[in-house]
Amino acid sequence: MHGLVEGNFITRIEGDPFGEFKSTKTRYGLSDVTFLVPAECRTLYATGLNFAAHGDWFFEYSGKRVPIPPRPDPGYRAINALLGHEGTVLIPYDASDEVHFEGELVAVVGKRAKRVSEAEALSYVAGFTCGNDISERKWQSQDSTFWRSKNTDTFKPIGPWIATDVDSDNLTVTTRINGSVVQQYSTSKMIFGAAAYVSTLSQYVTLFPGDMIFMGTDNATGRMKHGDVVEVDISDIGVLRHRVEREHR
Amino acid sequence: MHGLVEGNFITRIEGDPFGEFKSTKTRYGLSDVTFLVPAECRTLYATGLNFAAHGDWFFEYSGKRVPIPPRPDPGYRAINALLGHEGTVLIPYDASDEVHFEGELVAVVGKRAKRVSEAEALSYVAGFTCGNDISERKWQSQDSTFWRSKNTDTFKPIGPWIATDVDSDNLTVTTRINGSVVQQYSTSKMIFGAAAYVSTLSQYVTLFPGDMIFMGTDNATGRMKHGDVVEVDISDIGVLRHRVEREHR
Repeated sequence: MHGLVEGNFITRIEGDPFGEFKSTKTRYGLSDVTFLVPAECRTLYATGLNFAAHGDWFFEYSGKRVPIPPRPDPGYRAINALLGHEGTVLIPYDASDEVHFEGELVAVVGKRAKRVSEAEALSYVAGFTCGNDISERKWQSQDSTFWRSKNTDTFKPIGPWIATDVDSDNLTVTTRINGSVVQQYSTSKMIFGAAAYVSTLSQYVTLFPGDMIFMGTDNATGRMKHGDVVEVDISDIGVLRHRVEREHR
Repeated sequence: MHGLVEGNFITRIEGDPFGEFKSTKTRYGLSDVTFLVPAECRTLYATGLNFAAHGDWFFEYSGKRVPIPPRPDPGYRAINALLGHEGTVLIPYDASDEVHFEGELVAVVGKRAKRVSEAEALSYVAGFTCGNDISERKWQSQDSTFWRSKNTDTFKPIGPWIATDVDSDNLTVTTRINGSVVQQYSTSKMIFGAAAYVSTLSQYVTLFPGDMIFMGTDNATGRMKHGDVVEVDISDIGVLRHRVEREHR
């Protein structure tokens, strides 16, 4: 079920949230609903390294220098890993303690896009939401892809909703654990913005309504542990919140 | 629409091809239907390097040594790229001439799988089909992921159907261009088989019915060009066929 969020209320809509729809007379309080991932996604993309200071931190942390990409350098995340707002991230029993948050802006495609220019690309974006690109750093260094480090079930919380009128190149992303700020940066530092990524992707792949793109993280990231409550708060969008549990063997 | 292939006929079924279904009285000739990709796939996986001789060839070809993985080393392909049997692969105008075939066995998941053992893994596989893991080698060397080299629209032909009773570790894969054999190998040379991949993936990610896994290619690969007809023929499964066109600027 889809709805329009206005203030503390959600008005249920009928139809296609990315196409023709109409409002109904049904309203819910924000606290009365269970949030799903805000779009049905066929393919979940992510930028490569998209903030220079995160690259510097990652080099200090891991000894591995990820080069600044000369052009948008997309990769994938996987839909099995998606989790809605107020969900619970399950850390597998055999994960290391190095399970890190990466608070991120997420772009949501609103219209089928193939070979669109950078100038028109944002007209194919329905809006933006918040995501946590959770990363198990030991698996990230061991495996040749991110299939397990970043795509274990529940490792991709996204939400709470899609904000349709934001300047995606000028937002403040704040990550909190149990109320304390652990990461804060501006999306003005993105190496390539959403327009560049949408345009570049669309030269080769068809983007579909609901497809989402994680836009990368900045600065240092750090551990999440059993019992933590994690929030990704993006100005003009809202707050994505999730709990963290570690599985027993 | 789904059907059961027997000999030269397809019997239409009603219901869930991976669950409860029943045959109808409607039959079609094989040449009277348009083949879609044989399963609705949420996530399309691929093995990392899975044949030693292909690794040796790739080193000679590219100068890059891909290490033999010590454990199953999965990655992704993307569903925008899927193409059914008898489809047309479109090579973008800006691709190099190094657009290569990789004839491959493809495993199709039949039951939701999470944390299944290697011993039971094949009972979660509905069957096997043929695929061409088309790869633009210049983009493969330039980009940090395979998003464009292997996932450009139409670069993942799969089909024609799912064979439900095959010994996946003992099949002969033959790739032909315009009738001439350009690649032939046995799946007995796989470094890790479908059981190992399904079990390993399922320790961290949920596999869903219809998800597919490209099992890797062996030996040398080579160019496909405008006008070619390419076939991937796997013993006990069938023949996947597609045309190749290069787009004009």
